[in-house]
Amino acid sequence: MLKQMENAGLTDLHFGLDPATGLRAIIAIHSTARGAAIGGCRFIHYAREQDAITDALRLARGMSYKAALAGLPHGGGKAVVIQPEGDFDRTALMQAFGRFVDQLGGRYITAMDSGTEVDDMDTIASSTRYVSCTSASGDPSPHTALGVFEGIKSAVQHRLTRSTLQGLTVSIQGLGHVGHALAAHLHSAGARLIVTDIDPARVRRCVEEFGAEAVDADAIYDVEADIFSPCGLGATLNADTIPRLRCSIVAGCANNQLATDDDGNRLQARGILYAPDYVINAGGLIHVALHHAGQDGAHRDAKIREIGTTLAHLFSEAERSGQSVHHVADLHAETLLKAAVSESAQERHHA
Amino acid sequence: MLKQMENAGLTDLHFGLDPATGLRAIIAIHSTARGAAIGGCRFIHYAREQDAITDALRLARGMSYKAALAGLPHGGGKAVVIQPEGDFDRTALMQAFGRFVDQLGGRYITAMDSGTEVDDMDTIASSTRYVSCTSASGDPSPHTALGVFEGIKSAVQHRLTRSTLQGLTVSIQGLGHVGHALAAHLHSAGARLIVTDIDPARVRRCVEEFGAEAVDADAIYDVEADIFSPCGLGATLNADTIPRLRCSIVAGCANNQLATDDDGNRLQARGILYAPDYVINAGGLIHVALHHAGQDGAHRDAKIREIGTTLAHLFSEAERSGQSVHHVADLHAETLLKAAVSESAQERHHA
Repeated sequence: MLKQMENAGLTDLHFGLDPATGLRAIIAIHSTARGAAIGGCRFIHYAREQDAITDALRLARGMSYKAALAGLPHGGGKAVVIQPEGDFDRTALMQAFGRFVDQLGGRYITAMDSGTEVDDMDTIASSTRYVSCTSASGDPSPHTALGVFEGIKSAVQHRLTRSTLQGLTVSIQGLGHVGHALAAHLHSAGARLIVTDIDPARVRRCVEEFGAEAVDADAIYDVEADIFSPCGLGATLNADTIPRLRCSIVAGCANNQLATDDDGNRLQARGILYAPDYVINAGGLIHVALHHAGQDGAHRDAKIREIGTTLAHLFSEAERSGQSVHHVADLHAETLLKAAVSESAQERHHA
Repeated sequence: MLKQMENAGLTDLHFGLDPATGLRAIIAIHSTARGAAIGGCRFIHYAREQDAITDALRLARGMSYKAALAGLPHGGGKAVVIQPEGDFDRTALMQAFGRFVDQLGGRYITAMDSGTEVDDMDTIASSTRYVSCTSASGDPSPHTALGVFEGIKSAVQHRLTRSTLQGLTVSIQGLGHVGHALAAHLHSAGARLIVTDIDPARVRRCVEEFGAEAVDADAIYDVEADIFSPCGLGATLNADTIPRLRCSIVAGCANNQLATDDDGNRLQARGILYAPDYVINAGGLIHVALHHAGQDGAHRDAKIREIGTTLAHLFSEAERSGQSVHHVADLHAETLLKAAVSESAQERHHA
């Protein structure tokens, strides 16, 4: 276990059981050097306990990177509640998870993730104040969409040296809450949209509201566009799809867009500018973190707009160094985390 | 990991790393239903990480039982700091461990155990207030000895129906801090002593101070005595030694006296009354826990004397039910813990 933690760069890992409710939970904390670890709680079925641990460890590190590049005073963490076999009382289970979170005294702030809903966060809030994404904080999707919109403008400025989206074509894969809100921003900015989604109703709505052109799910990789925006499932950028792309920029809200690290290099080799997913889609995290901290909307929106500035910096650095953008982003996050670690060690030393 | 926790009946398990100091630590918490988990921190070399985890899990449960039967408002926990390979800065390491303890916000109070010293506890105290056994609390040995002395009197009352130790013979195996202090109590009470220790100087001191008779290490199992008091290593009560004993009572301060659970039954079958080790040797724990809670010495001494009453209850219950005393003790501890769990669930329900 300790070896696995060392490999993932984690500082601490916590296992909690509550026989009365069937709670079996894991909280992985990658870093608290910049502040309390924040990250979602998954509530899904795992075939093996080890899969749940591996998931938590891997995702916690990603949250540290995301929070650092979003400029938030937070480290990264991730929780997993293993879905019990058979019947269970969801409310009692989430309350027990809240007590487990509370035991860590604010070292970890939980949030929504695969399998958890706003209702669960409200339940958890009855046991601990270290929870975000409650109904009081509202839907984070519009904030994620705003960040992606800012990121796309930054990529267009860098790659196409244009300060407006007027007349550009954006192909959007996935029209969920974020995808739809992003389409609205792009339409308002004068972009032409080509869209796809497995749900025909969502596609219809985009066609009607924004005059978008609809294409079949698989055809989205082949359409000619300035920007391809993956806003659906993960791993859609892979060895099969990247050669088909006919765009200059990939910038969307989906998580884990690259199937492997190699796919970032593949995009670079094709001369396609890639906005790293965890940097461009941080708007929702910024919203929930600042809402939890009691910050106002104006401060939040300014912070979300900084996603564009951060990306501009990463794009320039990648160009200067010849490295891929996603690699430069990781290095930058690691530098920020290392600096925070040595700063807190110094503070202890002088205390 | 979760399965292993379930088997050991634990509620939570925490892993902490600090690359800067080489800290690799485990905190196992068996129960907090009666109050903060208390238990020692081992600092030893482990061949395999899994051995360290198994140690922590097993010992945490034992501490819950011990604290419950001592009537303390505490659950049981145990920590392990894995001794780093090669050079390390012990002070920095213990400070880092203290920060790890502090993260749990008082859910676990650490203490001295194999491989840790009072100095380490003082170092840990610079990082957290959730530490006992510091130099401020003083040596717990005399308090352990007082509890064992009270326990012996209780066993004598039950088994020999005598209210005094005057003229009885006690054979003592091991004359460390506790063994020597116990010998002093027994001598004052008029008992005759037969002693052994691997250190001849300790034996000499007992002979001179208390007129004790000295025997070779292995001969202690064969001497005729009313009470055999194991105060050295663990597992000295086993299939080889029990048939040799010529006593009516086994009551000493050593930890883990029974090599296996069967050995408790073996003593019972021979008609020897056994005072369960973790019940009779709780005086030191009572001292450090009450000192940590800021309680005064009079309250502590009264609590230590209750060890005699608790044992009297267990002896009677064992006689009534025909079960061995160590089994009755475990059952009683489990009942106390279960009652506390259901009480705290009810409190939450009514909150």
